[in-house]
Amino acid sequence: MKLLNNKLKNELKIRTQKDYPIKGVEFIDITPLTMQKEVMEEIIQKFLEETKNKKIDYIVSPEARGFLFGTALASQLKVGFIPVRKKGKLPPTTVETQIDYQKEYGKDILELPKLVEKSYQNKNFYIIDDIYATGNTVKAIQKGIQNLGGNIVGTGVIINIVDLNQDKNIFSLLEVQEET
Amino acid sequence: MKLLNNKLKNELKIRTQKDYPIKGVEFIDITPLTMQKEVMEEIIQKFLEETKNKKIDYIVSPEARGFLFGTALASQLKVGFIPVRKKGKLPPTTVETQIDYQKEYGKDILELPKLVEKSYQNKNFYIIDDIYATGNTVKAIQKGIQNLGGNIVGTGVIINIVDLNQDKNIFSLLEVQEET
Repeated sequence: MKLLNNKLKNELKIRTQKDYPIKGVEFIDITPLTMQKEVMEEIIQKFLEETKNKKIDYIVSPEARGFLFGTALASQLKVGFIPVRKKGKLPPTTVETQIDYQKEYGKDILELPKLVEKSYQNKNFYIIDDIYATGNTVKAIQKGIQNLGGNIVGTGVIINIVDLNQDKNIFSLLEVQEET
Repeated sequence: MKLLNNKLKNELKIRTQKDYPIKGVEFIDITPLTMQKEVMEEIIQKFLEETKNKKIDYIVSPEARGFLFGTALASQLKVGFIPVRKKGKLPPTTVETQIDYQKEYGKDILELPKLVEKSYQNKNFYIIDDIYATGNTVKAIQKGIQNLGGNIVGTGVIINIVDLNQDKNIFSLLEVQEET
């Protein structure tokens, strides 16, 4: 994994593991980022700067690693947080919509919860996730929210793997390239 | 589900579903708490008050719902956050210890990650989770950290189901009782 661009000043200790969870994938373990308080603080600070001129009603993140950064940001921004969960993790009666998507390794279904006394229509959503690889998770969430009439006002991730995509609308703190 | 005690001023819209995920269990869906910004803010504020006189090095939470409140608190406290994950979610080389435990419905193994350039020894850990039911998840994390030489300085949860346990050392914002 080669670091192309780093917006963080703190020294990073990201751990990677080759051929995990399946052969050919180099897994990025982001737990070292959350464990170092200075790094975690800087990450949230950068996201606060990035989002300060946007009108945001909700931060949206997929489980489980997206939750790590999404709720911290939502709490600092004082906006609501919407957890996007894998199929079966929300009680069926509280699911607003389902979204099929293709993961880097395998297929899955994501579910968006019903809001409380509100609809998604005309609300503004900012997506936070840990890693943007194929982009399929983020694209699935964008599509799900747009189908419900919501506006996507941006997407922020910690790490963008630029080999796998070239979406210029993704805000990222680190850009990496897979070594071949 | 009967509310016995409520430390939150905001109106709550917790959703429950009977016989989910298995017959006999009344599932508490905490997503309405995270979606309402006033409620989320009040929850974190209460945890800040509770922890203000404690020396804390790390907030520790189990996936996935513990992450929702744990990282938000860690970010406000400016301390590190340790995600406790289910077996197989961390690369094997980054696992510090495994802990077997009995869930409300089924058995599982939790894994604690290796810290970054530090050991758990003599560090102070505060556990945050969403719901304290049987208490088995929290007890497993406590045991795992203590086995590694760390100190547990407290445990905070949003909802304590007091029918299932009577642990007086758990700080909770809501106490509920299952209706029979």
